[in-house]
Amino acid sequence: MIVPDRAGAEALDREDPLADLRGEFDLPDGVVYLDGNSLGPPVHGTGEALRALVHDQWGNNLITGWTTHGWMDLPSRVGDDIAEIIGAAPGEVVVTDSTSVNLFKALAAGLALRPGRPVILSEEGNFPTDLYVAQGLTELLAGRAALRVVSAPDLEAALGDGVAVVTLTHVDFRTGRMHDLDTLTGIAHAAGALVLWDLSHSAGAMPLALDEWGVDLAVGCGYKYLNGGPGAPAFLFAAAHLQAEARQPLSGWLGHAAPFAFEPVYRPAAGIGRFLCGTPPILSLAALARGVRLLGSVDMTEVRRKSVALGDLFIELVAGRCGEWGFELASPSRAEQRGSQVSFRHAEGYGIVQALIARGVIGDFRVPDLLRFGLAAPYVRYVDVWDAVEALRGVMEGREWDRPEHRRRKAVT
Amino acid sequence: MIVPDRAGAEALDREDPLADLRGEFDLPDGVVYLDGNSLGPPVHGTGEALRALVHDQWGNNLITGWTTHGWMDLPSRVGDDIAEIIGAAPGEVVVTDSTSVNLFKALAAGLALRPGRPVILSEEGNFPTDLYVAQGLTELLAGRAALRVVSAPDLEAALGDGVAVVTLTHVDFRTGRMHDLDTLTGIAHAAGALVLWDLSHSAGAMPLALDEWGVDLAVGCGYKYLNGGPGAPAFLFAAAHLQAEARQPLSGWLGHAAPFAFEPVYRPAAGIGRFLCGTPPILSLAALARGVRLLGSVDMTEVRRKSVALGDLFIELVAGRCGEWGFELASPSRAEQRGSQVSFRHAEGYGIVQALIARGVIGDFRVPDLLRFGLAAPYVRYVDVWDAVEALRGVMEGREWDRPEHRRRKAVT
Repeated sequence: MIVPDRAGAEALDREDPLADLRGEFDLPDGVVYLDGNSLGPPVHGTGEALRALVHDQWGNNLITGWTTHGWMDLPSRVGDDIAEIIGAAPGEVVVTDSTSVNLFKALAAGLALRPGRPVILSEEGNFPTDLYVAQGLTELLAGRAALRVVSAPDLEAALGDGVAVVTLTHVDFRTGRMHDLDTLTGIAHAAGALVLWDLSHSAGAMPLALDEWGVDLAVGCGYKYLNGGPGAPAFLFAAAHLQAEARQPLSGWLGHAAPFAFEPVYRPAAGIGRFLCGTPPILSLAALARGVRLLGSVDMTEVRRKSVALGDLFIELVAGRCGEWGFELASPSRAEQRGSQVSFRHAEGYGIVQALIARGVIGDFRVPDLLRFGLAAPYVRYVDVWDAVEALRGVMEGREWDRPEHRRRKAVT
Repeated sequence: MIVPDRAGAEALDREDPLADLRGEFDLPDGVVYLDGNSLGPPVHGTGEALRALVHDQWGNNLITGWTTHGWMDLPSRVGDDIAEIIGAAPGEVVVTDSTSVNLFKALAAGLALRPGRPVILSEEGNFPTDLYVAQGLTELLAGRAALRVVSAPDLEAALGDGVAVVTLTHVDFRTGRMHDLDTLTGIAHAAGALVLWDLSHSAGAMPLALDEWGVDLAVGCGYKYLNGGPGAPAFLFAAAHLQAEARQPLSGWLGHAAPFAFEPVYRPAAGIGRFLCGTPPILSLAALARGVRLLGSVDMTEVRRKSVALGDLFIELVAGRCGEWGFELASPSRAEQRGSQVSFRHAEGYGIVQALIARGVIGDFRVPDLLRFGLAAPYVRYVDVWDAVEALRGVMEGREWDRPEHRRRKAVT
């Protein structure tokens, strides 16, 4: 791809089959938003929909809203909509709690499904909360389970009779490096282990085929590529054939087979509902429902195709127009190994990101030296990539990262 | 109290010092709402506030909203506001997850704080999710902890060297019977146990003094008397002096001492923040913030005084005007033993509640035969109680509970 000037990027946008989708989102004027891998923007009309929910449903129907407006079914309805996006069947996905809480449930369920195998296997680069939650669970189990963390290339060698669950994040939050989910799932299965995939950085950004790939368990985030809003509830996938045997310890009343029978002893619901726990936050769920519904109408193959093109363009432009400032590509240069973001390392990364934000280009910084740019194909344009790289060039030329207001204020404690 | 007619009830409303508060809520015309113990109504303006949050904060500031608009601090800010309502200090309460998930954390923390004591003690009438969660935790701990459930009068006798935590709900969800929280806390402490109180049916309905009473741990619901909206996030209280030693197993990234350092090993935050887990659902939290802020402006002593008067009136009127239909009072007749609801037993309870709803009087039914009426003093009027009992009389006189549309459709499975 050769894009010699802004007009070249504009030409790509004119040919983009997803171009109209951007109008479905609320994005501020004059901002290039490359942080949808942290928080996606609102789908247009979400604010009004929430106002209406509060007035017309909650305020008007009060407690009867749970049935009148189907709030009670929202976790499974939105779950079914997510299932379609990630290649799962209806009844295999439920929206509930946070990604962290769902990891806890899924890890515990995985250990219980593989009795006699006490090991949770993960990799060093996994998202911290994924490791923290596994640490919390194994500490609680005090000797009955252990977390083993190895570097990614050593994963296969670390598999063995003792591993119950391999828990990995599909796309690395720092570098965007993408695991070969399909192949690794097969390798884990060959060793008798289950897989638990964290899809936070891939659900809604590319086609996934969980059922086809034989995935056992998965979790994911509602507020990144699914555009569900800040802290949107997360989702949990459990393959249909595992559900009847799966037990998870957060046995709250909504996961009970008969929540309104108020029985004294817990009996898990028949299907995916057994992964529910407490009462779902309907206002946040309703916003997520809109994000998911919009993405459900989009061809994920097109999303992936454009996201790859945006990433390739970003890398090419930084190499060609910012070459002198020593940005080191932290993401795989080969698109098939890369998720929907591009990351660079630079010693002045913090100040550079602040200076970019001051110019209206929103990416983010991750310690110690990482600049991250998310490329959410439903609303990021080719011209945004062009403008972002031009802004980066301006920041470097003017040493804007060195201005007092962009220096790091305090160490991360 | 003698209220011979509707005018008598109206007179009480005219003298009510809380009368103006009702105007702060969105309540539909023509409805008598006696189910605020299940779901409180919206504080006026909540819908518009959410619309503005989506447009002006999320849509406009996107990821930077976490700092620009203080979303990151919302769990502790709303927690501090709740602390004021329940007699706790700033830094002792955090808003996070659901009541069920918080019970799991608090029970696990309680067990860890009392090593060598493997028993969680509770009572048969506890809210099912409280028992289910304790079952889930003790099953996970497979032999290292056990749940012991006794009837309420046997609680004291069941205390002993083995009990780590006594977990009770302050106000019974069925009958409204209220435990003597202060005394039971002292009895548990004398036996070396910690207490974990579920305040779902009392926070926001009466004065509480957790610190004065020496409570160790507590959880509670955001969507009942705190009026936070359907499925609003819950709260968790941990006494300041216990926090440094308290460990809970749902060790998600937001409970880490330095969430954005992305360290590989979990280190709990210094204070109440260690009870956080994943990213909080901001839209739902923002609605809860409004409910809590309004209640924080109200004198809880006045709320309790009026709630007692409403309950006494309800009981008196049912006895006096519906005596022939055999309603059995399921709540304590003595107000000091009763929370903010009144319950009756009747074999046709299901149909009666449906017929009342059809008349615009919203209470709820709990299996097998319980009619529940919540009396949230901030918005329930004396005249509402009068009208509710008159509606009940009409339902019984006309045998409206026997109409096909009010019969139970299917058994609870």
